[in-house]
Amino acid sequence: MALFDLLSAAVTFSNDADHDHVVSISVYAAVLCLCIVVGHLLEENRWANEAITATLIGCIIGTIILFSSKGKSSHILRFDEELFFIYLLPPIIFNAGFQVKKKRFFHNLLTIMLFGVAGVFISFAIISAGSWWLFTQIGFKGLNARDYLALGTIFASTDTVCTLQVLHQDENPRLYSLVFGEGVVNDATSVVLFNAIQKMDVSKLEGWAAVNVIGDFLYLFSTSTILGIVTGLLTAYALKTLYFGRHSTDREIALMVLMAYLSYILAELLQLSGILTVFFCGIVMSHYAWHNVSDNSRTTTRHIFATLSFMAETFIFLYVGMDALDIEKWKTTKTRWLLVIIWWAGLMRGAVSVALAFSQFTVYGVTWDPAHATMITSTVVVVVFSTLVFGCLTKPLIGILLPRRARENYQPDDTNDDVNLPLISLEGSAATAILQAKNSLSLLLERPVHTIHAYWRRFDDTYMRPVFGGPI
Amino acid sequence: MALFDLLSAAVTFSNDADHDHVVSISVYAAVLCLCIVVGHLLEENRWANEAITATLIGCIIGTIILFSSKGKSSHILRFDEELFFIYLLPPIIFNAGFQVKKKRFFHNLLTIMLFGVAGVFISFAIISAGSWWLFTQIGFKGLNARDYLALGTIFASTDTVCTLQVLHQDENPRLYSLVFGEGVVNDATSVVLFNAIQKMDVSKLEGWAAVNVIGDFLYLFSTSTILGIVTGLLTAYALKTLYFGRHSTDREIALMVLMAYLSYILAELLQLSGILTVFFCGIVMSHYAWHNVSDNSRTTTRHIFATLSFMAETFIFLYVGMDALDIEKWKTTKTRWLLVIIWWAGLMRGAVSVALAFSQFTVYGVTWDPAHATMITSTVVVVVFSTLVFGCLTKPLIGILLPRRARENYQPDDTNDDVNLPLISLEGSAATAILQAKNSLSLLLERPVHTIHAYWRRFDDTYMRPVFGGPI
Repeated sequence: MALFDLLSAAVTFSNDADHDHVVSISVYAAVLCLCIVVGHLLEENRWANEAITATLIGCIIGTIILFSSKGKSSHILRFDEELFFIYLLPPIIFNAGFQVKKKRFFHNLLTIMLFGVAGVFISFAIISAGSWWLFTQIGFKGLNARDYLALGTIFASTDTVCTLQVLHQDENPRLYSLVFGEGVVNDATSVVLFNAIQKMDVSKLEGWAAVNVIGDFLYLFSTSTILGIVTGLLTAYALKTLYFGRHSTDREIALMVLMAYLSYILAELLQLSGILTVFFCGIVMSHYAWHNVSDNSRTTTRHIFATLSFMAETFIFLYVGMDALDIEKWKTTKTRWLLVIIWWAGLMRGAVSVALAFSQFTVYGVTWDPAHATMITSTVVVVVFSTLVFGCLTKPLIGILLPRRARENYQPDDTNDDVNLPLISLEGSAATAILQAKNSLSLLLERPVHTIHAYWRRFDDTYMRPVFGGPI
Repeated sequence: MALFDLLSAAVTFSNDADHDHVVSISVYAAVLCLCIVVGHLLEENRWANEAITATLIGCIIGTIILFSSKGKSSHILRFDEELFFIYLLPPIIFNAGFQVKKKRFFHNLLTIMLFGVAGVFISFAIISAGSWWLFTQIGFKGLNARDYLALGTIFASTDTVCTLQVLHQDENPRLYSLVFGEGVVNDATSVVLFNAIQKMDVSKLEGWAAVNVIGDFLYLFSTSTILGIVTGLLTAYALKTLYFGRHSTDREIALMVLMAYLSYILAELLQLSGILTVFFCGIVMSHYAWHNVSDNSRTTTRHIFATLSFMAETFIFLYVGMDALDIEKWKTTKTRWLLVIIWWAGLMRGAVSVALAFSQFTVYGVTWDPAHATMITSTVVVVVFSTLVFGCLTKPLIGILLPRRARENYQPDDTNDDVNLPLISLEGSAATAILQAKNSLSLLLERPVHTIHAYWRRFDDTYMRPVFGGPI
């Protein structure tokens, strides 16, 4: 292990510009540890959660840095979209796919797709047309056709993390699955739609454009999903055929981690939706690949993915807290209150949204283009407003809509098919009537899904599992 | 999970300069997967090992890139010392500490320290003085006093990875432990000594300088070790007192990983020996902290560290293979054969040395300073020569020196105290006589160690384990 020049390299390394980088890494590592400890201590506190803890700690550290640097800066690592898109987002989304309750997710798939895809398209059309009409009415210029369409996609995507923090998987498993699934599909749809719009030739905006967008959308959606599934199946096949565990568990684990990451980065490279790809890769890996590895690898991979996701989320919230006190940004931004709102909205809207908001601001820069700045400002206002109002209404609404008796009687049981559950306890209120109507609709949508599910199970057991692995 | 601007960010991200980065990451991820699969398939082949496989695959990929880029370049990611020192080295060294057989390591500690520390100091003094005398005799100028001292430390550190590839932990456990331990101590000593020399005021080179260097050395060595031990104990204490596993295994795992990394980066920040710190942190964590976490976390952490280390090593060898075909470097370097030798030496000298060699070359740049270039060239020649000659002699030498009967009778048993083992089978050959003399010396050195060990065990059981955890 000798090193005829660890020597000079080590010394050079400590002395040069990398020093700042090392400082920021150590501060982040130390503060992440602090977040973990404090988050653990506050676990039983019903008001605090990991996100709020990390953000508050970030604020405190930011203040300390601000004072120690004599008001120069409160952040020590510039947030760029590379950090977020290449390193922080993939583990979060992959883990979501890896840990999702697959049976429930696919049972509700049609409903999820209806809300996720159709919902985004409807909102997109209404908002694009509406904003174009409104902006030309009030004489606000500086946006072209593509900008209006982009505005449509931006507003069409809704946040569900906030709602998930109020819901609990064990108490309302079906609702949770719907909201979670809708969130992922919604995310992916927005990205795919946005990509389709960016590729579109706006100078020749004709009637065919809409058809083209939908065509592009279907293409991107299906290719992203297929890429994720193929990567997952390939991993499962390799693990089953080669039986790595025979020689080394490290190889199995490394292969799963690398292939998961590869699916995401490949999708990004091909300008597909990395989120969708890595999500489906996670589902396929947990369904097939995970069963082909040794017991130790199973335990390890499950915890590796969860831990990575946990650390990435904590890091994002921590950064948000630190950045909220960033004096430089406050000085260069005309609309100073904007960042306070984003930071505050971040508390409500989950790690992904916050990171994206920040990455957006570093991409365009608020002060570059007044029209863009206005667009961003209005986006933020709408987002914050909707998050606040609808976010605060969520918990009372669940209380009113979900019959108390049903919730009390409900036994958390994963294998239990709870389609009929809300129908058991009919109460006379108007709220229940609405819920009943909604459930009838869901039921209507789910009947074919059940048949499909039965076919799939037969196909899975007969053809897929013998080839790709899994409990038979 | 909605995102009012994943949208633009994602698109901007795919289009701009980051694109190259994404390409290189995907190529590396894909090729790492390939290395894992091929390495697995060649596991039973006695000639190939993971390092050689990765290097050869790197060569092939390099050739493909070279042809596809029309002879422009064979590498797709520039190797900088930051990548190596901040991301690749810590997991390798930490894992070494975490997995080392502690009992055997500390049993042989005095011997290890004698070879590791005293050996480096002796070599350092002889080589520095010798090269100064030789270079002034042949009239080679351009090196100052500090350069001679640096040359001394560079040559004083010896490589042991090569030897370890020939030795097997189960066949020669004691020899393996000695060689391994000596390697780590040697590494750390060289770094610490080199740091001490860099800090030294060479303009006032007096008799006191040597004393100062030794003083600095003792200071750096002890502070690095203490930092590692303190970090490890702190982690163990936090894990034991707070009992994170109660709520979440993710927190335990994240805390261990972060604290291990923090110890390294903190040592680098304080200009200590990060290698020594993280090595001792690994030892303390596996002795105390590891026993305070849940069963799942134990399995996970053991495999996380091993997998990270495995991936980092594979990546380094892969890079070496790719870089060997780097046309640009060949064109700018006058001494073209140099890089072939480094690459080839890399095969023999292990991941750490190779990475360091490359980082050294990117730091100084071969063509900058003719005196430095000559120094580097001569270093490489000596390194390659010594590695080759002594490396090739290792296996026959072990065959001659270690009595065959002893090796055959030896039962791999970790609890077995094999101090007396080589003394059982005395044969009349000169080689055995040498070995016997060596063993008597070791025995002499180890007797006090045994007493110390007994005291330590008592102290550990009475005071340390109740506080910091571990099997009582």
